[in-house]
Amino acid sequence: MARRTGRRPGNPGTREAILAAAREAFAERGFDAASIRTIATAAGVDPALVHHYFGTKEELFRATVSIPVDPAELLPGVLAGGRDEVGARLVRTFLAVWDSPVGTAAVALLRSAVSNEWTARLLREFLVTQVLRRVLDHLDLDPAELPLRGALVGTQMAGLAMMRYVIRLEPVASADPDTLVAAVGPTIQRYVTGDLGPTTRRSVTGDPRG
Amino acid sequence: MARRTGRRPGNPGTREAILAAAREAFAERGFDAASIRTIATAAGVDPALVHHYFGTKEELFRATVSIPVDPAELLPGVLAGGRDEVGARLVRTFLAVWDSPVGTAAVALLRSAVSNEWTARLLREFLVTQVLRRVLDHLDLDPAELPLRGALVGTQMAGLAMMRYVIRLEPVASADPDTLVAAVGPTIQRYVTGDLGPTTRRSVTGDPRG
Repeated sequence: MARRTGRRPGNPGTREAILAAAREAFAERGFDAASIRTIATAAGVDPALVHHYFGTKEELFRATVSIPVDPAELLPGVLAGGRDEVGARLVRTFLAVWDSPVGTAAVALLRSAVSNEWTARLLREFLVTQVLRRVLDHLDLDPAELPLRGALVGTQMAGLAMMRYVIRLEPVASADPDTLVAAVGPTIQRYVTGDLGPTTRRSVTGDPRG
Repeated sequence: MARRTGRRPGNPGTREAILAAAREAFAERGFDAASIRTIATAAGVDPALVHHYFGTKEELFRATVSIPVDPAELLPGVLAGGRDEVGARLVRTFLAVWDSPVGTAAVALLRSAVSNEWTARLLREFLVTQVLRRVLDHLDLDPAELPLRGALVGTQMAGLAMMRYVIRLEPVASADPDTLVAAVGPTIQRYVTGDLGPTTRRSVTGDPRG
């Protein structure tokens, strides 16, 4: 934080310029390849100012997708019961976040991702690098299967959010968390640690019943 | 089709007026309570003209949500293997429709439902009355459990569509149908015929681990 640009730190234009450059970098290059330095250059500011406003790269990324929850803080709770409970705990944690006041921002993000390719890319990148990868990395799974397992978890979680909070399909929209944890937890558990069928382990020549 | 109003049958304004009245009726009153007669009255036309343009009430409903596929025609294929194969067949049929040229309209409907409460109501009503109810009615299940089972199927199918066709999360976006049928079929099978946990059968006092 030694150097400062000539801009005033409180300038809302500077903050917005950094956010815009970060959105573009994360959406176009992905979280891993984007750097604070290139984002700062694109925004015309010193990298130290980016850190000053937004903290770490992870925090800057969460700011670009307007997610006020840090997945890293939720992770210990999800993993506390070990591999065999990760499905139920992931659903319970997910519902606790979306049912809380923070859920409004999450619903807005989901709506935006569906109508806007830019936000869709950011959400996809966020899901993969900040949520799914972190959970799956702790579970000693076959690395070759991680992308499919993570994406399948994403399908069920996104659909649960869609139906409960956006489309509001009953009885899922009003169901208590226990009901949904019991119903959906085993799905997530199987996607994370279970058998996903022969096609995930070897190529097949097509299902003649199809 | 004996009587005709004074309007020209080819008048695009008439067709649009009927569609607008139908959308409002289906979204506000639901598919079961809405009638061709009240829709015709609201549109200022004779009921026969509604039938002339759109056919049955089911066909009119599909026109309001721009779905060019008749779920009733797909039903025999889904049910052909009996109860034990309904999960895999539902996923395979779903993917065949969405992967086809018709899928473009389905993606547009999904996008619209997320950003528009009106379309969300229509999609919800369509899912329940035209898709889920028809499948579940043929499977000899406990009627008390049907709404939850149907809605859970809806969560997984909506999330699969979101991630494969809208957010385009890999490897689900590019996976061949066999892989997804093997991975997601058992989820749907359990939601339709399997055990959904104690909370679906009796009230519970909360999970102390939550």
